Amino acid sequence: MKKYDLVIIGAGPASLTAAIYAARYKLDVLIIGKIIGGLATEAYEISNFPTYDKIKGIELMLKMINQTKKLGVEIKLEDVLDIKKNFRIITNKGEYSAKKIIIATGLERRKLGIDREKEFIGKGISYCATCDSGFYKDKTVGVIGGGNSVLTSALLLAKFAKKVYLIYRREKFSAEPIWIEEIQKNKKIITIFNSTITKLIGKNNLEEIELTKKKKLKIDGLFIEIGGAPGIALTKKLGVKITNKNEIIVDKNQKTNLNGVFAAGDITNNPLKQIITACAEGAIAADSIYKELIKNK
Amino acid sequence: MKKYDLVIIGAGPASLTAAIYAARYKLDVLIIGKIIGGLATEAYEISNFPTYDKIKGIELMLKMINQTKKLGVEIKLEDVLDIKKNFRIITNKGEYSAKKIIIATGLERRKLGIDREKEFIGKGISYCATCDSGFYKDKTVGVIGGGNSVLTSALLLAKFAKKVYLIYRREKFSAEPIWIEEIQKNKKIITIFNSTITKLIGKNNLEEIELTKKKKLKIDGLFIEIGGAPGIALTKKLGVKITNKNEIIVDKNQKTNLNGVFAAGDITNNPLKQIITACAEGAIAADSIYKELIKNK
Repeated sequence: MKKYDLVIIGAGPASLTAAIYAARYKLDVLIIGKIIGGLATEAYEISNFPTYDKIKGIELMLKMINQTKKLGVEIKLEDVLDIKKNFRIITNKGEYSAKKIIIATGLERRKLGIDREKEFIGKGISYCATCDSGFYKDKTVGVIGGGNSVLTSALLLAKFAKKVYLIYRREKFSAEPIWIEEIQKNKKIITIFNSTITKLIGKNNLEEIELTKKKKLKIDGLFIEIGGAPGIALTKKLGVKITNKNEIIVDKNQKTNLNGVFAAGDITNNPLKQIITACAEGAIAADSIYKELIKNK
Repeated sequence: MKKYDLVIIGAGPASLTAAIYAARYKLDVLIIGKIIGGLATEAYEISNFPTYDKIKGIELMLKMINQTKKLGVEIKLEDVLDIKKNFRIITNKGEYSAKKIIIATGLERRKLGIDREKEFIGKGISYCATCDSGFYKDKTVGVIGGGNSVLTSALLLAKFAKKVYLIYRREKFSAEPIWIEEIQKNKKIITIFNSTITKLIGKNNLEEIELTKKKKLKIDGLFIEIGGAPGIALTKKLGVKITNKNEIIVDKNQKTNLNGVFAAGDITNNPLKQIITACAEGAIAADSIYKELIKNK
């Protein structure tokens, strides 16, 4: 069986940039992923990727995909079922062998799982406050959740929106006291505990939400940031160390605790999850791998 | 005096991306730099920035500069003379005050300092093997230096070029034994010790170099990777910890040892110095700062 220098699992920005760097280092590289372009393809509009004022996620990712393909990188749209200790990778369609592996499977958006959610993506529903806050100047928005990152998002949204409903299913936040204090001090933020969203209402765009006990709120936007890592079970089984948030622990070279296994992008425990940081992590992983390979390690 | 939330020193990719993120977080941000766009503007052709197959450095940076300006970020082309402990920044033209500082002054290319060097940039002279190796397929190239990164570059170039002259002024490499071994094993690499370049020869493109003792070599490309950090004296005086290679030591959040002082881009001790990694470091620094500021730290 052919042994690739590098097999990258996942096909988003981290994976594609790793492949661009690896190909230019003349490594024999294979990408195996389920969604080419990754989660970024779903972003309605991206305004914080350097050099683009505004671009649709799908457009940005198509540029990256084409660049990768032009460099001759093989991409297989397959589902990884198992990664063996000897770096054999078993998919639903075949088996591959690698000298080095990058895990770049990203995050899955944990959806609310209610009617019309998909329909309203980019039409009121957003999954990234850092990316989309600016679109809600003087508007009313809802934010769901009660952890640190959600509270931070609510505070950011309050800088733009005129009113922010912070909706949480429990009766107390599960965040650091300092964030809770800032939320309480902020007059634009209205906290609603013990509630979940039961209905999304609107014609073309999201206009209203219905909460537990049929309470209705008029809103222009709804932020859902409750991500989760897919396929972390595979990684765990392989022996890769993860945090209690199911993120893969990497060092500055994107190395995991296992020799020859690297990770890049949203799946790592790095502090910021953005397209630009995912790309950089991919480049670093490829560079680290290239250096190990020419050292014959 | 107006106190900015954030003053960024330097105006390259790390700085501009930090400003893009900071502005979108509604921070009051000022960039002070000498060269708008930084060293990246000098890159003849860039092929490893995700989404662009090929783009001139100046074009890529103009896109980033315009994006930053559209967000209303103030940019001052001034020379920073001193940074006081109370975050007063003294330039050749004025004085500014900041809550947080990002140092993103990058690297300066240490030039050979011989005739026609500038003229041949992009016409045979390159400062980045990771970026430009691919242009020298089946060609003959020279590489100058004897440290780890230079030896790595020579090995990468040997994957493309038919012949690589590795020219070093001392009589022994100052690199790890493993790299020296790989260099010795590689039949495409010819090592020339005790030599420096005395002359660059060519009509429109670099064609030949002259070494110590008038020895002449026909080459198609010459790689000079002997960078140095500018203005590190200022940073040192402020009390920021640096490595023995004059790189600022940062953690995963781009924080230095000094509260409120961050660093991003080529000036840090992160493992890879590329435009994409500089951008990511800028984004992370801005995000860390935003989180500290809303915590009123």
